[in-house]
Amino acid sequence: MLIRGTGIGGGVAIGVVARMADPLPDPVERASAIGTEAEIERANRALAAVAADLEARGGRVGGSAKEILEAQALMAKDPTLAGQVADRIATGTTAERAVFEGFAGYRDLLAGMGGYLAERAADLDDVSQRVRAVLAGVPAPGVPDPGHPFVLVARDLSPADAVTLDLGQVLAVVTSEGGPTSHTAILARESGLVAVVGARGADHLADGEEVIVDSAAGTVTQGPTVDDLAAATERIAERAARADAPIRPGALADGAALPLLANLGSADAVDDAVRLGAEGVGLFRTEFLFLDAEEAPSIEAQQEQYTRVLAAFPGRKVVVRVLDAGADKPLAFLATDDEPNPALGLRGIRSLRAGEHVLRDQLTALARADAATDAQLEVMAPMVATVEETRYFTGLARELGIRVAGIMVETPSAALIADRVLAVADFASIGTNDLAQYTMAADRLLGSVAALQDPWHPAVLRLIGEVGAAGRNLGKPVGICGEAAADPLLAVVLVGLGATSLSMSPHALADVRAALARYGTVDAVRMAGAALAAEGAVEARAAAEAAGAPSVSESDGR
Amino acid sequence: MLIRGTGIGGGVAIGVVARMADPLPDPVERASAIGTEAEIERANRALAAVAADLEARGGRVGGSAKEILEAQALMAKDPTLAGQVADRIATGTTAERAVFEGFAGYRDLLAGMGGYLAERAADLDDVSQRVRAVLAGVPAPGVPDPGHPFVLVARDLSPADAVTLDLGQVLAVVTSEGGPTSHTAILARESGLVAVVGARGADHLADGEEVIVDSAAGTVTQGPTVDDLAAATERIAERAARADAPIRPGALADGAALPLLANLGSADAVDDAVRLGAEGVGLFRTEFLFLDAEEAPSIEAQQEQYTRVLAAFPGRKVVVRVLDAGADKPLAFLATDDEPNPALGLRGIRSLRAGEHVLRDQLTALARADAATDAQLEVMAPMVATVEETRYFTGLARELGIRVAGIMVETPSAALIADRVLAVADFASIGTNDLAQYTMAADRLLGSVAALQDPWHPAVLRLIGEVGAAGRNLGKPVGICGEAAADPLLAVVLVGLGATSLSMSPHALADVRAALARYGTVDAVRMAGAALAAEGAVEARAAAEAAGAPSVSESDGR
Repeated sequence: MLIRGTGIGGGVAIGVVARMADPLPDPVERASAIGTEAEIERANRALAAVAADLEARGGRVGGSAKEILEAQALMAKDPTLAGQVADRIATGTTAERAVFEGFAGYRDLLAGMGGYLAERAADLDDVSQRVRAVLAGVPAPGVPDPGHPFVLVARDLSPADAVTLDLGQVLAVVTSEGGPTSHTAILARESGLVAVVGARGADHLADGEEVIVDSAAGTVTQGPTVDDLAAATERIAERAARADAPIRPGALADGAALPLLANLGSADAVDDAVRLGAEGVGLFRTEFLFLDAEEAPSIEAQQEQYTRVLAAFPGRKVVVRVLDAGADKPLAFLATDDEPNPALGLRGIRSLRAGEHVLRDQLTALARADAATDAQLEVMAPMVATVEETRYFTGLARELGIRVAGIMVETPSAALIADRVLAVADFASIGTNDLAQYTMAADRLLGSVAALQDPWHPAVLRLIGEVGAAGRNLGKPVGICGEAAADPLLAVVLVGLGATSLSMSPHALADVRAALARYGTVDAVRMAGAALAAEGAVEARAAAEAAGAPSVSESDGR
Repeated sequence: MLIRGTGIGGGVAIGVVARMADPLPDPVERASAIGTEAEIERANRALAAVAADLEARGGRVGGSAKEILEAQALMAKDPTLAGQVADRIATGTTAERAVFEGFAGYRDLLAGMGGYLAERAADLDDVSQRVRAVLAGVPAPGVPDPGHPFVLVARDLSPADAVTLDLGQVLAVVTSEGGPTSHTAILARESGLVAVVGARGADHLADGEEVIVDSAAGTVTQGPTVDDLAAATERIAERAARADAPIRPGALADGAALPLLANLGSADAVDDAVRLGAEGVGLFRTEFLFLDAEEAPSIEAQQEQYTRVLAAFPGRKVVVRVLDAGADKPLAFLATDDEPNPALGLRGIRSLRAGEHVLRDQLTALARADAATDAQLEVMAPMVATVEETRYFTGLARELGIRVAGIMVETPSAALIADRVLAVADFASIGTNDLAQYTMAADRLLGSVAALQDPWHPAVLRLIGEVGAAGRNLGKPVGICGEAAADPLLAVVLVGLGATSLSMSPHALADVRAALARYGTVDAVRMAGAALAAEGAVEARAAAEAAGAPSVSESDGR
């Protein structure tokens, strides 16, 4: 049987299923057998143990995962909540039931007050589960450990699950919920893990079943035949061979150079990118420097991180995106209001303008790092929608000593006026995830609209083509730094639409490199044209594939 | 002195300022003089009084305002909150301080748990203010009543304030916050009230000052001169004359017909629309039928409402938009998850597909109302992004007996593939508010990005022009039903971009009718071209104005 979802990356895996433990059942209402004081003592010990565990895990991981774990630890330590638990125990019930009710009361309170509380309410539920698991002496719900490599099947991975995943044991991840931009998908892309997300049918997979997970096709094969297994094994071997193939610069079959760059989220990822053959960095996200901080990092501290990245790519292009903050990840030092739709709010360059000192410091640190290294630094601003914003950013960057300043094209607006924007900016880099999100008006974080959020949609391709055409007319480079560049077939289409470089998670480089080498420039343009004229995303992909297939005579000749 | 903001509509008003009462100061920590029991009694009476008042006001208003007021009444009646207040009083403090602390504790709890709580946290603050006003025996913060007509100056109007506004006394509203789609702006549009919103400088206006509020220019003149007052008086008289002018069908100066239709939010608004000369209905929103309901209204109940509207326009076009629900206004009978960005979520046609019985019932009721009346019924679906969705909706509508089925163009996607969408749909109607929101990636409800959310932006105009061109090529009508149609100069540009009808709040009809009569088709196309080529929204407006101005010789000749 074939279960369908959204595949991340191009890998295949064969393995046995291990399901993530189901949540604990609701404890029944029952009179305590050991008395109020002993129950309160049990509850407090369990709360403290969970708080300590969450803090310890937070200390091990860092980044935004750390924040989430620490926020959860604070919930476990909240004296008001502990008081509510104790009050309930005082009525004669057990610690299990009191914890369940106490946390549920808070969760319901939150959920009842407004429409946007699912995330934090879920965090409270998770803490409640952990405390009750401690009370019950059972393992907390979370990633299983069957003692051998396995295919992890889950509803969706929480950030806490994702950071604790042992990649040496997990052959693939299959989730029944979550879209292509869920935590699971992000983890899979960053680590090269085989994953199929949003596979509704995965709820029926049982522990110990053998499955084939095919992330290129977005399928999970239940009860595979011997032939299925043989074919999968061959593809795994092929892909391993491709990964081991000598690394050449990205180019089309006719020799047209197409630099393949890396998307990086921190300076620590540099070595991997170099090893996997990145010809530079197309998107260096700088949020990691700011997210944990009470105040913006000093110019010196930033300069040190930027220098690490730039030093790894002498003579190469390194494109740094300045801080992309917003109400979805508020920072202490940049004013943010609560917003009903953070994705449409004061984020990116809008937020930086409101706190220009942060932007000035960042550009100053970048200019200094550039002066100290031999890479070709380029900086770009996120969420630009107007020519006026483009002029503001490039003007400030040049004032502070940056030589090459461009913008991200993420809003439909920036693409639609690309001729005017590129007359001001030195280059454009298209963020296909956000561009698709806004063009289709479909949240990239929301599974229920994931099917709409597809960079193959002709409307999205058309906007990319507009930027490509403007770049060609003005002689300005147009890069792609969204996840679309990591889809080998789409990568070819993007080149046909006018992209002059592609940037992606380093683990995707080998597949894209191999795909580009199969087509000439003329093929890419023809494939792009076929995709543009299609009715929808599925049809666009099929049209590009058909337009790229060698004709019978050509095929014979090869 | 001139204070600038965003003007709503085209009116001018002269009057004296009355400011909305500032919030009560935080009560100081102070030992109770009357004892715990008496303080608790005072607190409980005040809570009950506020709950009763909010419920009574909710009962008077209906609609979404009712829901908000009732949710606030529930907060005032919440036993946990009352308990927290009593616990604080038990420590010896006053009821005022205990209410302040109790509500603030909940507010902080919410605010600390996630980023999306401003709205509900503000509601809690409002209830706290009301309870403390009762305790202090002072009027609750809210709309002032100086005893004579006045210009209301406020930070922003809450929904509760907006519904209680006495339009016989309020000459104009000026807010220092809130954008063109705030509650204040919506109220102003629906009622024809003169308003300037988001006028930061309005914080300095004092009670009793005379001001001129010019919503066409988006300005508030502080300390007007005699000449200012004379000019404003003349414009007020001119506008009154225009409103009293005989009502002719909408047409350009060269006689080209351009039907002017009404946007309606309920069947009750029909009489006003007819009186103000609407030549039909371009957008009949049907949410009012569903918002208050535990379950979807019956086919019969819906049919009755639709019949009321259709019967008022015999022989005329009446375009009904099917239910546009989503996570920002969840309905009990349509499943909605909490969503991080409801504007990018499962709304409009996406949500209706997930609960198709609701859509089937609505279309059935519409087909029956159509059969019983002589209007020309057309139905359209909100939030369509793909050809596939277009085919789904128009197919279902025809299956259920609807003769003319089209779509709203609100997503950039629908505009970018308008040729393919209009090959399937009978017509398109452009919702400029949402189209601008997604194109610019700027929330229409968020003041801090209001400047970006401008239908004059060339990127938005370009998408409108794409739909216009597709309509012309395929011989399909393209209407405009967003607020852009109510801006007289922009209305002319929209016609130049290919709009074949304009729909707006009935109070805007007279100004737009007068504007269209000043320009020929050639003028409109020239003005549209000038706006399209501009760099930004401000430049586009100026370019259209310049392109529409008569040359010196023409001007002499008139």
